[in-house]
Amino acid sequence: MLNAKILGSGKAVGSTVMKNDELEKEMSLPKGWMEKASGVQSRFYINPDKNESALTLGVAAAKQAIDESGLALEDIDCIIGANGSPLQAIPCAASLYQRELGLEESGIPCFDVDTTCYSFPLALFVASNLINNNVYQHILIISSDTPSKTLDQCEKEVRTIFGDGAAAFVVTSSNGDSKINKFLLKTYSSGADFTCVKGGGTLRPPNDPETMPNDNLFQMEGRKVYKAAVRYLPSFLEDFFLNSLSKEDYKFIIPHQTSKKGITIFEKFGFKREQIGDHLATHGNCIAASIPMLFHDLLSSNKIDRGDNVLLFGTSAGLSLGALSLTY
Amino acid sequence: MLNAKILGSGKAVGSTVMKNDELEKEMSLPKGWMEKASGVQSRFYINPDKNESALTLGVAAAKQAIDESGLALEDIDCIIGANGSPLQAIPCAASLYQRELGLEESGIPCFDVDTTCYSFPLALFVASNLINNNVYQHILIISSDTPSKTLDQCEKEVRTIFGDGAAAFVVTSSNGDSKINKFLLKTYSSGADFTCVKGGGTLRPPNDPETMPNDNLFQMEGRKVYKAAVRYLPSFLEDFFLNSLSKEDYKFIIPHQTSKKGITIFEKFGFKREQIGDHLATHGNCIAASIPMLFHDLLSSNKIDRGDNVLLFGTSAGLSLGALSLTY
Repeated sequence: MLNAKILGSGKAVGSTVMKNDELEKEMSLPKGWMEKASGVQSRFYINPDKNESALTLGVAAAKQAIDESGLALEDIDCIIGANGSPLQAIPCAASLYQRELGLEESGIPCFDVDTTCYSFPLALFVASNLINNNVYQHILIISSDTPSKTLDQCEKEVRTIFGDGAAAFVVTSSNGDSKINKFLLKTYSSGADFTCVKGGGTLRPPNDPETMPNDNLFQMEGRKVYKAAVRYLPSFLEDFFLNSLSKEDYKFIIPHQTSKKGITIFEKFGFKREQIGDHLATHGNCIAASIPMLFHDLLSSNKIDRGDNVLLFGTSAGLSLGALSLTY
Repeated sequence: MLNAKILGSGKAVGSTVMKNDELEKEMSLPKGWMEKASGVQSRFYINPDKNESALTLGVAAAKQAIDESGLALEDIDCIIGANGSPLQAIPCAASLYQRELGLEESGIPCFDVDTTCYSFPLALFVASNLINNNVYQHILIISSDTPSKTLDQCEKEVRTIFGDGAAAFVVTSSNGDSKINKFLLKTYSSGADFTCVKGGGTLRPPNDPETMPNDNLFQMEGRKVYKAAVRYLPSFLEDFFLNSLSKEDYKFIIPHQTSKKGITIFEKFGFKREQIGDHLATHGNCIAASIPMLFHDLLSSNKIDRGDNVLLFGTSAGLSLGALSLTY
């Protein structure tokens, strides 16, 4: 158990609302196919003509989170980047966020943590350990993913699911009322190829003539991810709930917004429908930004109060399963 | 102060020894130019024909570290990837290492931390916090960077400096004799463009027609990095040594192997030549792998004993300065 408290949160999405109609027309899919396949009705896309990017969305969310926390920019003493997809290969995203926030001469330490879609709860857990050990006082975590431009434009599954968005949280120490109760992460790399971008690094460098254009695109075998998750989930949840809060103690489980099936599956594991956070229909899956975006939405609509227990659950590329229990 | 102990370490380098003579001939540089400019005489390159890559080097180093620690593979309960350059954009490197180690069904949690060249000490610090808080018991940290294939082949500065290598460390809890004494990281993103690969992420996706081939290459303005480091170093070191061990308490300072100037500068800051770790001449700069590779070399040649104080210092892309003090 770690004493840590969320002071403020923020969210930003791309300014273009991309509805299924338009995408279905473009991809010559029957009307209604996308909603039936995934539960997504529309998603937000960045508009590069308006200079929108993962960087600008992340910074907009960060400014809102800092504002809401009642702190000044200079009170932040650590910035953690928790993207699922990199902004660029080098340096870390946190550093680019720092510059865009006008803190380029502040010396505020910047680093990234990465376990793809589950990077935000991982960052929250790492931040809480650092706060608990009196390393830092006010940590800013930013998750921002804008996959729209990096998807295989011919792949109906990924184009149905993914959207662009960002969220940011400010975390500080707590007197014990707010806390991280438990964290569990399990990685099964037998599924490492189910969700991947094989390019972008030293194994298949972008400019290597042997690197194929497809290596640089996001690849997902959604059915395999779902099957693997279903296989590992029972023992994962059993481990997680051992000597811990029980399902009915949670106001909300906030699952990564993978698909309708990936969200409603928690009903089979004993959660009530009203406990399961869900904004998939209007946002799609925004990779690492999904969990904190939905968390922010539930906070800003006053559906979560101080003292409520919240469970951040996710599957991620790797393949990993993660769960973090917190008392808000 | 965190109780944490290094149990074992390992190192691997590319099998090709690339001497200055050959590179100077290829690049039509006068004989002796490279050593004079940098202090590097030769560096190791991976040989892709022998199936060498950042993945295989990282795993070779990891196996040696686990072996040396006296543990079985299954005793590892967390794997942290601490590369300076990604293996691929998605998923995290730790997951790919896990699979290559044959642990693909183990469930061992995998994630990466990233502050480019200083990723290893950051990972060691994060690991020590997690160990100290009883989250994990035996954490494997792997840093592996093989920039040779991603460098601008026409850029004499980067081709002189960089080599391919990997190192891995196993960290566990301690009774207090071995410990992390202090950690300091400062980021000045005014220098974010001094060392960068602007491609490889969502800001300039590899397949975007507007992304230029050069965006995917490693770019470094060495003189600007050095000047910035020299500017920030006095106040950084003053902060670091405040209420802490003093310079003469250290058996070794292990600086990131940036260049001869970047290593010998510590003499100006009060360290004796024999305190300053250095294998630049034979290894060059292996990005995030440099600090742990040199640390491993000093350990395996018995130059560091239990109880000795060691200072891991680095500048990194971001631009960041970092220092971690440990009692081995």
